Amino acid sequence: MTLPRPDASLEDVLAHADSGIDRSLERLFTLLAIPSISTDPDYGAHCQAAADWLSGQLSELGFDASVRPTTGHPMVVGHDRSATGPSVLFYGHYDVQPVDPLELWDTAPFTPTIGEEGGQKVIRARGASDDKGQLMTFVEACRAFKAVRGALPIPVTILFEGEEEAGSASLGPFLDQTASELTADVALVCDTDMWDRETPSIITMLRGMVGEEVEITAASRDLHSGMYGGAARNPLQLLSEIVASLRNPDGSVAIEGFYDGVEDLPDAVAAQWQRLPFDESEFLGDVGLSAPAGEKDRSVLQQIAARPTCEINGMWGGYTGQGFKTVIPARASAKISFRLVGDQDPARVREAFRSHVRARLPEDCTVTFKSHGGSPATSIPSDSEFLTRALGALTDEWGREAAIAGSGGSIPIVGDFKRKLGMESLLIGFAQTGDRIHSPNEKYDLASYHRGIRSWIRILDALSA
Amino acid sequence: MTLPRPDASLEDVLAHADSGIDRSLERLFTLLAIPSISTDPDYGAHCQAAADWLSGQLSELGFDASVRPTTGHPMVVGHDRSATGPSVLFYGHYDVQPVDPLELWDTAPFTPTIGEEGGQKVIRARGASDDKGQLMTFVEACRAFKAVRGALPIPVTILFEGEEEAGSASLGPFLDQTASELTADVALVCDTDMWDRETPSIITMLRGMVGEEVEITAASRDLHSGMYGGAARNPLQLLSEIVASLRNPDGSVAIEGFYDGVEDLPDAVAAQWQRLPFDESEFLGDVGLSAPAGEKDRSVLQQIAARPTCEINGMWGGYTGQGFKTVIPARASAKISFRLVGDQDPARVREAFRSHVRARLPEDCTVTFKSHGGSPATSIPSDSEFLTRALGALTDEWGREAAIAGSGGSIPIVGDFKRKLGMESLLIGFAQTGDRIHSPNEKYDLASYHRGIRSWIRILDALSA
Repeated sequence: MTLPRPDASLEDVLAHADSGIDRSLERLFTLLAIPSISTDPDYGAHCQAAADWLSGQLSELGFDASVRPTTGHPMVVGHDRSATGPSVLFYGHYDVQPVDPLELWDTAPFTPTIGEEGGQKVIRARGASDDKGQLMTFVEACRAFKAVRGALPIPVTILFEGEEEAGSASLGPFLDQTASELTADVALVCDTDMWDRETPSIITMLRGMVGEEVEITAASRDLHSGMYGGAARNPLQLLSEIVASLRNPDGSVAIEGFYDGVEDLPDAVAAQWQRLPFDESEFLGDVGLSAPAGEKDRSVLQQIAARPTCEINGMWGGYTGQGFKTVIPARASAKISFRLVGDQDPARVREAFRSHVRARLPEDCTVTFKSHGGSPATSIPSDSEFLTRALGALTDEWGREAAIAGSGGSIPIVGDFKRKLGMESLLIGFAQTGDRIHSPNEKYDLASYHRGIRSWIRILDALSA
Repeated sequence: MTLPRPDASLEDVLAHADSGIDRSLERLFTLLAIPSISTDPDYGAHCQAAADWLSGQLSELGFDASVRPTTGHPMVVGHDRSATGPSVLFYGHYDVQPVDPLELWDTAPFTPTIGEEGGQKVIRARGASDDKGQLMTFVEACRAFKAVRGALPIPVTILFEGEEEAGSASLGPFLDQTASELTADVALVCDTDMWDRETPSIITMLRGMVGEEVEITAASRDLHSGMYGGAARNPLQLLSEIVASLRNPDGSVAIEGFYDGVEDLPDAVAAQWQRLPFDESEFLGDVGLSAPAGEKDRSVLQQIAARPTCEINGMWGGYTGQGFKTVIPARASAKISFRLVGDQDPARVREAFRSHVRARLPEDCTVTFKSHGGSPATSIPSDSEFLTRALGALTDEWGREAAIAGSGGSIPIVGDFKRKLGMESLLIGFAQTGDRIHSPNEKYDLASYHRGIRSWIRILDALSA
């Protein structure tokens, strides 16, 4: 081990990351082995363990790091502000999605392994891509600077959340309490995809989201369909009719006022998207589909990144076990989410949905709604100096012009950083579309991990210039 | 204990049943404590235990009884043909419905207790009404004859099935094998309701049934709705649209050809139904409903007993656990049943349903169907001598003219007895509409049990005359 040299070159730092990649990977595997599923209360201790481990890693690197309790899963905060220059707040989340259906996994979800897929080495585990692999690219970039130069090039604060997959209930209050501690010149968020395997991207548009759970109750108890079938209201039939009524035949959402605040894509972005490589057939074909199911007058790229939508994420009621039970269930439920764009107001969309359901309810049925969070869409000004420097650093690393992109998924943290801390966010991630996040057999390309670390080294360096 | 007297009067036999009711109840409780759930493979040993116990009871009464293995749950067969006169085959089923949702039970489903409800003593347990309580009324009637007279008044064969709630897969082959052994002059089936608490009834019309399970697959794996939402087909949305399309706005079933073979109720029966007490508001109000959901131009009584219908018995897909998961599931499923009347053909209804679904399937989705049994509707000639005698016996016991009724539920055994053994069935049961069969807190009136035993004593006597 050589002593750190403050004047070591960027190439030296990158070379250190290259030679240490195996040990970087071992550390990621340790984190991936912790089943930190945030939506299931049974996994609370594992979320705590993941937070503790991350805080320990940051402390080891010389950060002033600690685990901060919340009413939900804890936050991890670390500061290293010894450098001068523009300050950054890095954000990632250590919680992961549930793993069901478990039988569809080829490897145990919390036993990380290296596999091969399409000629690429891949890291297989729940959270490999979303978001443990991504957040560790930044930690390892910091590690390389510390090892080679003994210091980071700019002041860095790190925030790791443990409820991103569960609605981020504790985040707003936490940001309110720690605003002065966390506010930096710009936020760096690593939870997004590259444009494709060769083309890095920074996402400037993010869809918002509204999550709703609806339960419809008809009879006061389950009924025998032989005795009541025909005369008794069937809540599964009713809920199906309501769900069917959410979409128009042209693929658009049929809720009154849903499109208020939605505008067409700016011409410049639309033009860039036509230039950039995107194969609709391949995008759908990769997951066994061939016919786009959204608005008929929009491209697939617009449907997934620039248009709002409504999705049924779960639905259940009646007898769902083996065999058959001729029951008319008393109740039926669904989890439904809306992706928002532009100036759509989450509260108004939620209320419009609830009105839509209530208007279709027979008088002897009741409905209850449960909110599962909401956030507006967000976008980042294209003339930001931080954006320009980061695009340059990515272009240097990947040898290809970085794309400015929109993302179909919601990252509510971006809106929170803007509203609560007054910060813009640079959304820079190294995941691939085919990483199967939220699904069985999640993976993260080994190249994403390695070159992700290198990319952050370059970006931190570029921001310090 | 007095010795049996072959010339003891009917009143003596009835008096014996009255004085022994507590011990009759103890025996029923023993049977109710066995969790013989036939649809769940985990409960196979309990089904066997229930069969063994019943066979033991029949042997104790002097029947030549045995447990007969099948490829599913066993049958119990017992013969006592020492008497002369018209022979009967009594049928009941010892299997019960699943008990979920367990948290809605006020008492443990397999710990029978006596409770009180609306001023009536009731027996509480899964199967109390459907069908253990009912089948034991006949066993206890036989016991009374044996104790008082030392013999049954007519030749009796008893058949207990263990798969009635699970589609009766073994029944057809079993009847084929045992046709000569089981065939009698008439079958007695105890699995139905009284008209109301005061009015006994014999059911002459039974709806048939078709059970179907449908699974729709869209993408090759679960997708993240942020990444694919808008462009990817959502099978829960699609299944909901298909389910919604099964019904017309007027409450009728929208499948092409569904009503082929359906005829209006005969005038005489329609007239009797108008005379008999039936309160639509009370029938629906008892289960928390107020608006009939079936065909708008039919009475509730017709909707539940004389008209065909389509019910969604279960539906599931996507994330259904706690919290929220923004997934577009790969597949969605439903269990759907059809009640049939008149000459509707189960095979044609099944095929018409499948065609209806296939016609609504986008080309990149697939569907698989699973049959959960089917049986046509059945009806019994109103000029049957057995029917006349049984109606008289019931009228004697209850002091009120017995009704001729239709039942909304399917009892496929009746069709099987007709087709395979050439026998008509008398459907005589003592259950009440409010017994909550197939639901939490199933009960059977103590009066149903006691006067059910007395009713069978009178019927066996009447058939011997």
